[in-house]
Amino acid sequence: MSGVEFTKGHGTQNDFVVLPDRGDALELTSARVRALCDRREGLGADGVLRVVRSSRTDQLVPADTADSCWFMDYRNADGSAVEMCGNGVRVFASYLVHHGLQPPGEFVVGTRAGGRRVVVHDDATVTVDMGRAVVTGRSSAVVGDAVFDGVCVDMGNPHLACVLDASAGDLLDEFDLGVAPGYDAQVFPNGVNVEFVRTLAPGRVRMRVHERGVGETRSCGTGTVAAVAAALGESHQRTGTVLVETPGGLLTVTIEEMTSTLTGPTVLVASGRLAESWWREAGREPAVARSS
Amino acid sequence: MSGVEFTKGHGTQNDFVVLPDRGDALELTSARVRALCDRREGLGADGVLRVVRSSRTDQLVPADTADSCWFMDYRNADGSAVEMCGNGVRVFASYLVHHGLQPPGEFVVGTRAGGRRVVVHDDATVTVDMGRAVVTGRSSAVVGDAVFDGVCVDMGNPHLACVLDASAGDLLDEFDLGVAPGYDAQVFPNGVNVEFVRTLAPGRVRMRVHERGVGETRSCGTGTVAAVAAALGESHQRTGTVLVETPGGLLTVTIEEMTSTLTGPTVLVASGRLAESWWREAGREPAVARSS
Repeated sequence: MSGVEFTKGHGTQNDFVVLPDRGDALELTSARVRALCDRREGLGADGVLRVVRSSRTDQLVPADTADSCWFMDYRNADGSAVEMCGNGVRVFASYLVHHGLQPPGEFVVGTRAGGRRVVVHDDATVTVDMGRAVVTGRSSAVVGDAVFDGVCVDMGNPHLACVLDASAGDLLDEFDLGVAPGYDAQVFPNGVNVEFVRTLAPGRVRMRVHERGVGETRSCGTGTVAAVAAALGESHQRTGTVLVETPGGLLTVTIEEMTSTLTGPTVLVASGRLAESWWREAGREPAVARSS
Repeated sequence: MSGVEFTKGHGTQNDFVVLPDRGDALELTSARVRALCDRREGLGADGVLRVVRSSRTDQLVPADTADSCWFMDYRNADGSAVEMCGNGVRVFASYLVHHGLQPPGEFVVGTRAGGRRVVVHDDATVTVDMGRAVVTGRSSAVVGDAVFDGVCVDMGNPHLACVLDASAGDLLDEFDLGVAPGYDAQVFPNGVNVEFVRTLAPGRVRMRVHERGVGETRSCGTGTVAAVAAALGESHQRTGTVLVETPGGLLTVTIEEMTSTLTGPTVLVASGRLAESWWREAGREPAVARSS
């Protein structure tokens, strides 16, 4: 069978096309990423995870990444290359184990934000070390006419996590996040992922997220950790373990002094090959802008 | 490689998961159709096309279907089995030819609405005989507060095609078809596909469609023919060839006295196999309703 290999998978409905590329030979242009992620013309996904040996991508990999690890070249649905994606790392790790590229258990995945320690459990649940959730200040987000106070959290990528108080009621479920929330471009010159989170009970929160360059997604790994850091902070806790309800399912976040972990299910849906004619066409920049 | 085989393809962005099932052995339940069509948890599609020999599905195939043909077992994204899908037949025919199940050129595809003559051209453009567009009367559709007069067209499935006049201006582009238009349930006891169409120039129209059981789609084959029949009727023509702009691309419809044809491009995106664990899980009826 010819054509570019792929696997489609998701972590709490944050979904990805995985492209194995051991030899760093794929011409994965922005146009091809957008076409792959298009939910009618392509396979459809929130992002693409290219699987490449870290030794092949010296210019991309920070010094702390082990020489011999697999590197996750993560691209958003809009074609942009971004630092990290927590659910992406979980699906990436699950892919490596289920396709025989890595034994199960604990190993390191290379990302643009550094090496990330993961544990692939027997039931395809994956824990990923998300690094330290660094609270850098406060700012605000705008949805419609409403302004929400939020906590700036650096997870390797920028987050603004707004904790809604009990008086907000069902607001969290009613928001229209179809449009990107407004933010202070002086604080976030490269854009920002915006989370809204509400505490349901001690140790349990519900959240929604608008991802920079993607739109609202059913789950976002780094956003989940940022939301928990903000929610714990509101109750003056610096560390703790919290169960997080996202629209895509349940995740568990543990915040420690020097790092954090994200644990949750992964699902590999299907594997196969892209039609050669499709891949060739997708390489052409379209005459008119593609809809996403 | 194990797991259920699939191909993902689209015709003017009306997209389908094709499941080859020569021996009629797949347990394709409603739950599995919904899971396959889910755009985050599955592969994502407007519908599923099961490929089965017509001789294996005697109870489904009308008497006029050739004994030896391939039968298109078409299911909507909500899991329901429906009669016909014009873009589905085009993608189905393209699949048969490109996977070596049928020589290119002219042949017959079996559907629940009878045998359909198709021609697969060298450039993967496919013409399908859509049968006679039977105008059965008039009725009206409701979008928001507005009521639109429309033509009832039987294409093997029921349509209500509303022709907007020039005074409607850009209304066609501004409609919210996220919610199903209202219709007269006495006229359409099994629901109806609703089209809105505007004539741009002689021989060229633009349209949008809300498909029963699916929602707004970027293109709908039978809907395209129904819309052209209605548009021609408004200018007192019974036959003609019209180029149709759909949100998913250009189609050509020819209406003759006794039949009609639909011609347009098809794209096969990718082929592979569903993970066995995913297929097994998808067979379980979910404890809570799935979102689509």
